[in-house]
Amino acid sequence: MKAIVKVRPEPGGLELRDLPIPKPGPNEALIKVKVTAICGTDLHIYKWDAWSQHRLKLPRILGHEFAGEIVEVGNAVRKFKVGDYVSGEGHLVCGFCEMCRTGQGHVCEDWRGLGYDCDGSFAEYLVLPEANLWRYHPDVKPEIAAIHDPLGNAVHAVFAADCVAKKVVVFGCGPVGVLAVAVLKAIGAAQIIALERGNQYRMNLARKAGATHVLNDIDLDDVPAAIRRITGGKGADVAIEIAGSPAAVQDAVRCIHPGGHTVLMGIPNQRIDFDVAEDIVFKAITIHGITGRRIYDTWYRIAGLLQSGNLQVEELITHRFPFAEYEQGFQLMRQGDCGKVILDL
Amino acid sequence: MKAIVKVRPEPGGLELRDLPIPKPGPNEALIKVKVTAICGTDLHIYKWDAWSQHRLKLPRILGHEFAGEIVEVGNAVRKFKVGDYVSGEGHLVCGFCEMCRTGQGHVCEDWRGLGYDCDGSFAEYLVLPEANLWRYHPDVKPEIAAIHDPLGNAVHAVFAADCVAKKVVVFGCGPVGVLAVAVLKAIGAAQIIALERGNQYRMNLARKAGATHVLNDIDLDDVPAAIRRITGGKGADVAIEIAGSPAAVQDAVRCIHPGGHTVLMGIPNQRIDFDVAEDIVFKAITIHGITGRRIYDTWYRIAGLLQSGNLQVEELITHRFPFAEYEQGFQLMRQGDCGKVILDL
Amino acid sequence: MKAIVKVRPEPGGLELRDLPIPKPGPNEALIKVKVTAICGTDLHIYKWDAWSQHRLKLPRILGHEFAGEIVEVGNAVRKFKVGDYVSGEGHLVCGFCEMCRTGQGHVCEDWRGLGYDCDGSFAEYLVLPEANLWRYHPDVKPEIAAIHDPLGNAVHAVFAADCVAKKVVVFGCGPVGVLAVAVLKAIGAAQIIALERGNQYRMNLARKAGATHVLNDIDLDDVPAAIRRITGGKGADVAIEIAGSPAAVQDAVRCIHPGGHTVLMGIPNQRIDFDVAEDIVFKAITIHGITGRRIYDTWYRIAGLLQSGNLQVEELITHRFPFAEYEQGFQLMRQGDCGKVILDL
Amino acid sequence: MKAIVKVRPEPGGLELRDLPIPKPGPNEALIKVKVTAICGTDLHIYKWDAWSQHRLKLPRILGHEFAGEIVEVGNAVRKFKVGDYVSGEGHLVCGFCEMCRTGQGHVCEDWRGLGYDCDGSFAEYLVLPEANLWRYHPDVKPEIAAIHDPLGNAVHAVFAADCVAKKVVVFGCGPVGVLAVAVLKAIGAAQIIALERGNQYRMNLARKAGATHVLNDIDLDDVPAAIRRITGGKGADVAIEIAGSPAAVQDAVRCIHPGGHTVLMGIPNQRIDFDVAEDIVFKAITIHGITGRRIYDTWYRIAGLLQSGNLQVEELITHRFPFAEYEQGFQLMRQGDCGKVILDL
Repeated sequence: MKAIVKVRPEPGGLELRDLPIPKPGPNEALIKVKVTAICGTDLHIYKWDAWSQHRLKLPRILGHEFAGEIVEVGNAVRKFKVGDYVSGEGHLVCGFCEMCRTGQGHVCEDWRGLGYDCDGSFAEYLVLPEANLWRYHPDVKPEIAAIHDPLGNAVHAVFAADCVAKKVVVFGCGPVGVLAVAVLKAIGAAQIIALERGNQYRMNLARKAGATHVLNDIDLDDVPAAIRRITGGKGADVAIEIAGSPAAVQDAVRCIHPGGHTVLMGIPNQRIDFDVAEDIVFKAITIHGITGRRIYDTWYRIAGLLQSGNLQVEELITHRFPFAEYEQGFQLMRQGDCGKVILDL
Repeated sequence: MKAIVKVRPEPGGLELRDLPIPKPGPNEALIKVKVTAICGTDLHIYKWDAWSQHRLKLPRILGHEFAGEIVEVGNAVRKFKVGDYVSGEGHLVCGFCEMCRTGQGHVCEDWRGLGYDCDGSFAEYLVLPEANLWRYHPDVKPEIAAIHDPLGNAVHAVFAADCVAKKVVVFGCGPVGVLAVAVLKAIGAAQIIALERGNQYRMNLARKAGATHVLNDIDLDDVPAAIRRITGGKGADVAIEIAGSPAAVQDAVRCIHPGGHTVLMGIPNQRIDFDVAEDIVFKAITIHGITGRRIYDTWYRIAGLLQSGNLQVEELITHRFPFAEYEQGFQLMRQGDCGKVILDL
Repeated sequence: MKAIVKVRPEPGGLELRDLPIPKPGPNEALIKVKVTAICGTDLHIYKWDAWSQHRLKLPRILGHEFAGEIVEVGNAVRKFKVGDYVSGEGHLVCGFCEMCRTGQGHVCEDWRGLGYDCDGSFAEYLVLPEANLWRYHPDVKPEIAAIHDPLGNAVHAVFAADCVAKKVVVFGCGPVGVLAVAVLKAIGAAQIIALERGNQYRMNLARKAGATHVLNDIDLDDVPAAIRRITGGKGADVAIEIAGSPAAVQDAVRCIHPGGHTVLMGIPNQRIDFDVAEDIVFKAITIHGITGRRIYDTWYRIAGLLQSGNLQVEELITHRFPFAEYEQGFQLMRQGDCGKVILDL
Repeated sequence: MKAIVKVRPEPGGLELRDLPIPKPGPNEALIKVKVTAICGTDLHIYKWDAWSQHRLKLPRILGHEFAGEIVEVGNAVRKFKVGDYVSGEGHLVCGFCEMCRTGQGHVCEDWRGLGYDCDGSFAEYLVLPEANLWRYHPDVKPEIAAIHDPLGNAVHAVFAADCVAKKVVVFGCGPVGVLAVAVLKAIGAAQIIALERGNQYRMNLARKAGATHVLNDIDLDDVPAAIRRITGGKGADVAIEIAGSPAAVQDAVRCIHPGGHTVLMGIPNQRIDFDVAEDIVFKAITIHGITGRRIYDTWYRIAGLLQSGNLQVEELITHRFPFAEYEQGFQLMRQGDCGKVILDL
């Protein structure tokens, strides 16, 4: 089978290779991939940043956002069958630690990440445990199915706090940021204030997704003050940080009113300091660190939002490339004038 | 001032009278009413049902849904002032009982109801404690401000369970029922299944409000089975009962899946029996009795939903009459081919 | 191996039989049972009530409360090993339905009950799926390990509402009822009012478990009024019903204050009627149907309570019999002057 | 009346003065103080730290922890009367801002602090708004009533996360820290690990209060590692920080397991930096800033815990002085070998 493999420990370093089709174990399914999408994590690995260097053993098939069809199942598989149209949860969890057994599998003490700790979905075929499979109705378009992982990040972040009918700020208009804006629109956030650092393309995407205000933080001396003005009071109810810059993280803590909530999902690459007394304790705020998706609460939530008709994400998939032209996809992601980027097999 | 007064202990029994303008106490405000709306409770009093006979001392100015302007304030009023555009919470609560002091003022052990325990808003002027006032931005139309009380009932019912992205059934398409449908649409309910017993006008209103399915339960032998078919599984996630008929209450308990939620807001006039073992215990469902509005969480939630633009309720205000033609309004409410009915002063 | 088997479809109808030791499948473990306990469910089957007649196919090894040691594991078992000291969750769930995948496995749409839908723990050896195993530290006494199932029922019921520092009523002082009293004592319930219908032995057990008030409801004309007197206000904060009688269920709804919570775990054998308007809607109460245990939140909660030292349940294990003398255990359970009854292998 | 007044803007700077008895306004009560207690905040003002210099206008009667009897009420007071035995909430809130109207009055946008923004309880008489009064049963000892404010801080902190049956760390064994330990003991925390920096007296108090482990963090190179060892896994479930040192705040974030909760109540006097990516986002923890008390949820919770008999705090009141010997009390607080310090009038 064809697969996009990280072969060299350096920026870029990908090759399209021919590899044997993997065999599913007793509890696993083999999936023929139809569509796969490039995640920011794939871009990190492409760039070969510090995290990637520490985490990956090469060669490795990348990718964890996908949709496809089951073509073979192991003999202990119980509820899924050949022909099922599926994607899957990209965190392979142990199922037995305290986290897994109490509804927090996304922070399993022993989880492995599809496409970096084991071979992923940038391939014609993919093996996944039955426990990771998620089935779709044929009405769901494959490109929508393929982005359930990042859409799940957005849903997880939005539902970490109470955002319905609330004034919410989203820091960062990358793919997950604009998906979060679309989710906030779908559930009736009172105001949706999106911040982005300079990228006009992404600011436009945020508007399309439903942001009521889009701010370019290059233009702003004091982001929390700007947000207090827009919200007409002591600040936003909720701030969701998906940019990962230290300034954005600090502003996400400072721009909410006393008793408000800050959701941190972006990954800063340095330590960040706070005025804990003034901005956390006396303001009695709550900060939620968020990663991955609730398994499977988040997935059911996505399904319901799509079924409602309120959640519109198609326009946020801005580019599609044939599988073999993956390099263009990565270059585009790197440059930034895009939403979700899809590879078709 | 002109006021609509229940003067005789009998069906109808209303008169338009000239009465002195009331004086606000130290902690009260005097409000000039611009718009008032007829509630189902007013209709109960009009019909002089058992509850009304037990509860009211006549003569009494009816009405508790209104919008107007403050024209005088008592000397201890602190945060509201003459000229403020307001409506108000219709439950006058004590503020000091355990319920009031722990965020459950809507079940204050000593509350009084505006327009039945004390004089109400069917008048040119109205007195309310400052603690009951709610201020609007001038952009909010008076007729929308005037229906915050029933809209608050709907919001309270919907937010009693987790309805976002969920499959929800609403029993009863009266004014509060269709408002609940509109709220469910605004927050992204996956499916919104509205049931009504025969009234085509109200079924149409439910469609306009955003119901994905409208069922006439006259046509249905087995409502829970119909709902299981539509929801494609073990039943709805949430059922909201605002009809008050025994059959609807029983169906609202039976139509949800194990672990689901039933919200009861309708007021049945007889005892109702359940299969507690099969339908409540073994199914591990949760039943929420709901009355009034959260003071003031519900009000802030309404404000946020209106600000979002997702909540559309104007079409659910179907009729407006001059104040003096209140009798037509009551007749229309009685007959049932209406949504909210407004009286203009 | 020796096993207690329900062989005849009639009251009693048990036999001690010699049967082959079962073989674990790939995902299963074989456990050598050291201690097993008789549940109320076993008594229902002993008595051969309507539920049993409908549910069981004979012959069937009964029992689901146990502790033992793993002596063999299937080849796909990952986290448990030979020598582990375990008991297990008695609900065998599918793991893939919406309930299972969203933390409500106790109402799995396809669950089977150990000891009635499949062979149970009244035997020298028992097979369980790895997903059902729960490991103990050697410090935990086997008889305590063996009652984690009913203790889990009690914990699940108590934690269904907010009972810490609250005034709580427990209806029914059977084994699960007195365990609930002990749990309430451990977590600092303000008042623990236990009700029992005549059985002095069980009333004494409730006192030992930590009840602040023990009432014999034979002596009471009006249970809710008695509870209002004791709680000094509008009623209890929480009522937990584990008796299953219609009167107790009705009183459990009526004895709480507005905004309070009723937890229903007892299994009535007839329909029960309520004044829905007065006692549920206008009082804005919440009713929680409860069954089984949260998998595994409840189990971790038990572990923590035992570790705290606050939870004392040893005195609630009142009788132990050799395995072969099970008939005495059943007779004692039937007669009622007991707490938990243990069989030693 | 006699009153302890901060008269000079310098360390110490207190005088015992004779002042006129204040007059209650229409919504206020005049209270004759029987017992008052010295809070850490009073000590900050005594030391005249940066916060005090910024916040206070002198002269000012200090003190906000007290118990006494109502001797006069204003004419609009409705539910309290002369002779009531009371203490009161020390945050005077506006009652009308969004925070106040949605159950977050402790972060009212316009609150004033008794004993620093207005005259306090270090006096024979004190005026408080009726909305701030809390009534006691005569059985509650005055010294217990007088410490409801710091006990409320402890309860608020403990109930900010789910601590029942959980492994909890308390950083700091000052008065609020040891009260938090006592509360954790009362509600059945699985482990209660108290940390203190060197003060043996306070470490002993923590043991008396119920700590299962007391650590001197002077002896520890790596506090999170020590806590992982004691908890036998990935870390504590909850960490409660009441020390306010940067190292403690950082350790409180690092010592919990993925998905755990950190409660920050201590007041650091400098900025603090975190590894947001590793310790907050990837670990998906929740951080709760906490200040004051929930008005009045926290007060009802205290009442219930005391009524349960599980909460024992008398031994944590370690010293009592006559009112005029306040200087000794402050010196003792400064030196640190004490729990709560009481002044008797």
